[in-house]
Amino acid sequence: MNELVFVGLGLNDECGITVKGLEETKTADAIFMETYTSLMPSFSLQRFEELCGRKVQMVTRRMLEEENGKVILDAAKTGKTVFLVPGDPFIATTHVTLRVDAAKHGIKTRIIHGISIISVIVSLSGLHNYKFGKTVTVPFPENSSETPYNVIAQNKQLGLHTLCLLDLNAAEKQFLSVNQAVGMLLKIEEKNRKGIFTPETPTVGIARAGSDNPTLKADFAGQLAGFDFGEPPYSLIVPGDFHFMEVDSLIAFAGAPEAFRRLSK
Amino acid sequence: MNELVFVGLGLNDECGITVKGLEETKTADAIFMETYTSLMPSFSLQRFEELCGRKVQMVTRRMLEEENGKVILDAAKTGKTVFLVPGDPFIATTHVTLRVDAAKHGIKTRIIHGISIISVIVSLSGLHNYKFGKTVTVPFPENSSETPYNVIAQNKQLGLHTLCLLDLNAAEKQFLSVNQAVGMLLKIEEKNRKGIFTPETPTVGIARAGSDNPTLKADFAGQLAGFDFGEPPYSLIVPGDFHFMEVDSLIAFAGAPEAFRRLSK
Repeated sequence: MNELVFVGLGLNDECGITVKGLEETKTADAIFMETYTSLMPSFSLQRFEELCGRKVQMVTRRMLEEENGKVILDAAKTGKTVFLVPGDPFIATTHVTLRVDAAKHGIKTRIIHGISIISVIVSLSGLHNYKFGKTVTVPFPENSSETPYNVIAQNKQLGLHTLCLLDLNAAEKQFLSVNQAVGMLLKIEEKNRKGIFTPETPTVGIARAGSDNPTLKADFAGQLAGFDFGEPPYSLIVPGDFHFMEVDSLIAFAGAPEAFRRLSK
Repeated sequence: MNELVFVGLGLNDECGITVKGLEETKTADAIFMETYTSLMPSFSLQRFEELCGRKVQMVTRRMLEEENGKVILDAAKTGKTVFLVPGDPFIATTHVTLRVDAAKHGIKTRIIHGISIISVIVSLSGLHNYKFGKTVTVPFPENSSETPYNVIAQNKQLGLHTLCLLDLNAAEKQFLSVNQAVGMLLKIEEKNRKGIFTPETPTVGIARAGSDNPTLKADFAGQLAGFDFGEPPYSLIVPGDFHFMEVDSLIAFAGAPEAFRRLSK
């Protein structure tokens, strides 16, 4: 049957895919994969091909963005085609256009979801899901913007936590570090002086979420700016109001200082 | 090695687990599972035991909440113990206490993440992740509260979408339906008259997210209240401001009426 199945690879390595996703891949007539929208630090194409017993064709940003995924759509017109994407296929909006285009060509589409950074970060942190506000991406310094600071301010006013995704360019192996992101936010604070993100602001940095050896460190921003998180990728949480159980969790699993206890309500 | 590994089962059936999660289960000395915090409509314990080639011990809410998970902690003191949880192990806060208790007993813990409803709903809807505000749960009518209405109001004021998780009691097979949730919100509107949730409010209902046959329907609340979503579980999104690509996606994949085009900015 001709159809296009978007399959999430999950995080970190070739075993982050679901059993269902792997089964769908094994039975596909054509298999494509992109790895430019995110970094999977321990992923090996060779090991993945051994796991599914099939050859996988890598697609580039150019093939998707300039050629509108023609190679994938052409395959999906004649047989079952799987397109493998890091994380979940549609949490970033990058591939929504390809799905809409497929529908316009009369190609049936399905989604096999993958583990996404947006739920993994919440889960790892021990912070309460229903206390997160709007998510924001912190861009590289050359695209610096006050948007992340303003989103944090808006969320804090409502007592909510902010998940900050840190920009990356997987193809160029460039990753905004937690230290850089904290530094950029402190600089905006120095200019704005609204008390939103000072060296005394509690923060949680995360490296390699979804891997076997994630680094999680909770501390005041002034301290976190100097912490060594090791290898990428990175994320940052700027908490709003704390529940005491959230503080317990950060002390037990993120090395938060005891002083965090004074912050909980 | 003695340790406690929390493994997410993902959604829907026994194949929602990751390859990594399945491997960890195969090599455990003891395996426990709970299925009371969520509904996995097509999950079969027998098929799961065949998949991992091992026997799994089911734990009840009482064993975890009244006996503080003693049976699991005892096993983890003497060998590698896997605790299987629907979705991701820590998106609901239910099991955070068990993890903190394990740490107090000097038991090492690890997390193998699972696919969570909170990312799957965003992915399925085609709405933009960074435009979601705070998430809220709509309780059963007997616990009715204005909190969901107020959270929707707060998010809308900021132009943000609201993900409404609909209450469920998996053990009793009770599920708040999209129709009930919409009805409850319309009633609160009738009382408050703030124009937050009227019959003309755009809404997106979702049933069986993460399964092979999810139902997705976007329509105005007055219409959605009468739509047949089939079998549970259910979720509801109340969108804030629309980007035109979000509307394209809802028309292509959620049967949204063309009138939605007038709503995008």
